[in-house]
Amino acid sequence: MTSRDGFQWTPEEGLAQGVPSIGVISPPTNITSGAKPWDVIVVGAGYSGLTATRDLCVAGLRVLLVEARDRIGGRSWSSNIGGYPFEMGGTWVHWGQPHVWREISRYQMRTDMEPSFDFSRGVNHFQLRTNEGTSIMSHEDEDTLLANALQKFVNVDGSLGRKIIPYAHDAFHVPEARQYDSMSAKDRLNVIALSLTPNERAALESFVLLCSCGTLETTSFFEFLHWWALCGYTYQGCMDSLISYKFKGGQSSFAIRFFKEALSTGRLSYVFNSPVGAIKDEGDKVTLTTRDGCQYTSARLVSTIPLNVLNSISFNPPLDPQRMAAANKGHVNQCVKVHAEISNKDMRSWTGISYPFNKLMYAIGDGTTPAGNTHIVCFGGFNNHIQPEEDIQETRKAVENMAPGNMDIKRLVFHNWSKDEFAKGAWFFSPPGLLSTSLDALRRRHGNVVFANSDWAVGWRSFIDGAIEEGTRAAMTVKEELQASPAPRVRL
Amino acid sequence: MTSRDGFQWTPEEGLAQGVPSIGVISPPTNITSGAKPWDVIVVGAGYSGLTATRDLCVAGLRVLLVEARDRIGGRSWSSNIGGYPFEMGGTWVHWGQPHVWREISRYQMRTDMEPSFDFSRGVNHFQLRTNEGTSIMSHEDEDTLLANALQKFVNVDGSLGRKIIPYAHDAFHVPEARQYDSMSAKDRLNVIALSLTPNERAALESFVLLCSCGTLETTSFFEFLHWWALCGYTYQGCMDSLISYKFKGGQSSFAIRFFKEALSTGRLSYVFNSPVGAIKDEGDKVTLTTRDGCQYTSARLVSTIPLNVLNSISFNPPLDPQRMAAANKGHVNQCVKVHAEISNKDMRSWTGISYPFNKLMYAIGDGTTPAGNTHIVCFGGFNNHIQPEEDIQETRKAVENMAPGNMDIKRLVFHNWSKDEFAKGAWFFSPPGLLSTSLDALRRRHGNVVFANSDWAVGWRSFIDGAIEEGTRAAMTVKEELQASPAPRVRL
Repeated sequence: MTSRDGFQWTPEEGLAQGVPSIGVISPPTNITSGAKPWDVIVVGAGYSGLTATRDLCVAGLRVLLVEARDRIGGRSWSSNIGGYPFEMGGTWVHWGQPHVWREISRYQMRTDMEPSFDFSRGVNHFQLRTNEGTSIMSHEDEDTLLANALQKFVNVDGSLGRKIIPYAHDAFHVPEARQYDSMSAKDRLNVIALSLTPNERAALESFVLLCSCGTLETTSFFEFLHWWALCGYTYQGCMDSLISYKFKGGQSSFAIRFFKEALSTGRLSYVFNSPVGAIKDEGDKVTLTTRDGCQYTSARLVSTIPLNVLNSISFNPPLDPQRMAAANKGHVNQCVKVHAEISNKDMRSWTGISYPFNKLMYAIGDGTTPAGNTHIVCFGGFNNHIQPEEDIQETRKAVENMAPGNMDIKRLVFHNWSKDEFAKGAWFFSPPGLLSTSLDALRRRHGNVVFANSDWAVGWRSFIDGAIEEGTRAAMTVKEELQASPAPRVRL
Repeated sequence: MTSRDGFQWTPEEGLAQGVPSIGVISPPTNITSGAKPWDVIVVGAGYSGLTATRDLCVAGLRVLLVEARDRIGGRSWSSNIGGYPFEMGGTWVHWGQPHVWREISRYQMRTDMEPSFDFSRGVNHFQLRTNEGTSIMSHEDEDTLLANALQKFVNVDGSLGRKIIPYAHDAFHVPEARQYDSMSAKDRLNVIALSLTPNERAALESFVLLCSCGTLETTSFFEFLHWWALCGYTYQGCMDSLISYKFKGGQSSFAIRFFKEALSTGRLSYVFNSPVGAIKDEGDKVTLTTRDGCQYTSARLVSTIPLNVLNSISFNPPLDPQRMAAANKGHVNQCVKVHAEISNKDMRSWTGISYPFNKLMYAIGDGTTPAGNTHIVCFGGFNNHIQPEEDIQETRKAVENMAPGNMDIKRLVFHNWSKDEFAKGAWFFSPPGLLSTSLDALRRRHGNVVFANSDWAVGWRSFIDGAIEEGTRAAMTVKEELQASPAPRVRL
């Protein structure tokens, strides 16, 4: 099946919208007769919504899943082009991410993983291109460069961030951590500027921007410290957790497991291609109205609508001012992720940074396609933004500039998250001042509406793990309310 | 409620068997009428059994939980003495342990954790006592000593073990890793002996024995490498994951959540104080017979009976020879864990090793009791074994020898796992040659009997995390078999 989402470009075919994915659901509507009114409506079929849906169905509740797109996965889905999974959004997972790994383990998929990196052959080096010139170095030297620069960046407490965020899943545990949410990455860079070499500074800035995909000014330094804590306070941990291990079959091979399990209970109804217009909580029930006027009613509603989209939905009663202010401010991640299939087989072991002059800044060899070509994945951010489908020549040039002379492009694949009306950005990354003021508000319920999204997870916020964390939380909340417990006959 | 398990000694009262715990279940039997035959019998109310029970009950199946003891938790439970939770077995958890952290997150207990270590005051140092003499050093120097020694120990591949076990949750992914399962810790020490200082050697040996609680000869070097990989290939990671974060309310405050959730479904029956005698699989049903002759029947049975106890149960048809050989060989962990409440308030920040001459070898300040005394937790292994209740004077002396002159003992609390007929040892630790030959066999089902125990988990084997991993696996297997799926009406 082919999704409307995503773009593909080849020299032969030019630009085409829509790519095939095993995450497309057909037929797109499946309303179990007699299921109305549902116990729960879940809005959104990303990992938060899929997890909530599955957990609620398994627990015996009747669920209606409403999704705007033609596919599951939200901001994490894989296209399937010639049998090869290009990851259109969220990609990498790690066994140190508790919620996602629990699911991988539960679905017996732990041996379905493979590493992105393969530092074994060919152009087996790191290429750093800056305004000052080009450096070629070994991957060991790449690690040393980044590790040294990052340690200077995060070392606010003499313990590389350990003292200020000792509990990665309770990041404001030390109240002093809040002060770093009023700092931007740029502010922190200014503090340590004199201690950085030009290469360290360029590599550090591009790494921080790879995480936030905002600008240095719009990147919360606290949130970067939180990522660092989650990754075990080391650059090696960042590499392991953020960009190393992916599904051989692509993210959609994982997401479909949640959906199928929910479906197998016989308690799941769903409608795809159904953007939500309004959500009305009438006290004894919640009514959802789609843009095309269909209405659905349930006892509870789980909204997994992302932060940057929340203010496009009409809520009645209206959302509280704090949540609305946070939604209006939004997160800052406008990641541009472009996959390039290139003919040079020797580029499999290559990594590179081209910063700040180029429209893409960070790239790695990510695989070998069925045609034997090298798959390179490239990242850009809001600091030097492009809309890749609007000017393919510019996009090609940005890819070629990552490694001049070594990028003979056979195919480009991407999803423009910035122009995606159901995401309005990629993974959550906080601007200064958002989390310390609004995280609690974003996590609160609103009458019969429960909010679940990785954007306001407490652990691996922004990650697939955080989405599952949130879906789990929402399902638990709703399950406990709707399943009246039989009075225990024992004293505990 | 007071469990039969555990011992307590005070100068005033002497030795007494049994300690209070919130994990004791009263009344001990709760058979829901009309529930026979059950869908599933789960044997064992440790974390494996509790997880399987809960998941199955939530999924709509009727479960009978059969437990030999008077309490939940198996090898992880907390006594509650004057409101203070002494951890009788498994204690520490970490957010890098996916299954346990998912549960902590799901039960909204992530802020119910506290650190064991508090390096802030008083006798704030590490004391290393060996046959050669005594060294006092800072905790920073303690870390450096252990880190250096451990790096020499694990560095079989020039990458501190990363290349030989790149996937901590698929430890035999690199086939060459198997060779290290034919080596003991002693064998590996012999290889690196010339590179170790006497202090490094003593600290390293006692750390390895703290992990295995066997002898150096009976400790699989592979399994130690597996722990090291799980902990992120660093000593800091070992400290974080193995011995840092515990529940403020004790393990039983966590375990009871699983039990209560299962109970709240109305589909849980249970019998405590009911050791199993025989398990008979008749093809269309499984019949369990308790030692006192009660019989229960179900469609499937989940056995969470530990490895070292497996050969005390009569299975019909008999277990396969490979599993029986593994059970007869057993694991080697005969940990002696003794809590000491001491009057010296300044010992909160102390840590110490006394090795190899002492009957206990490793101890840390673990808390402050309601009386304001310091709580020290001490560990010993099979290398210099004691049965602590058999000679309290010897046990007291072993505690006092950890820090001569600083251990004015007000109370001792312990559980003798070696003499516990339902455990026959503490957490799993493999002798050489067991895992590489038998892990797959231990994980296999046996007709309608599914086996689940941390002893043969693939990830955090031996840990609470591994128990939940296994309980999750068993429940998923049984659920998929017993819940006939309605035919999906859609093509996926």
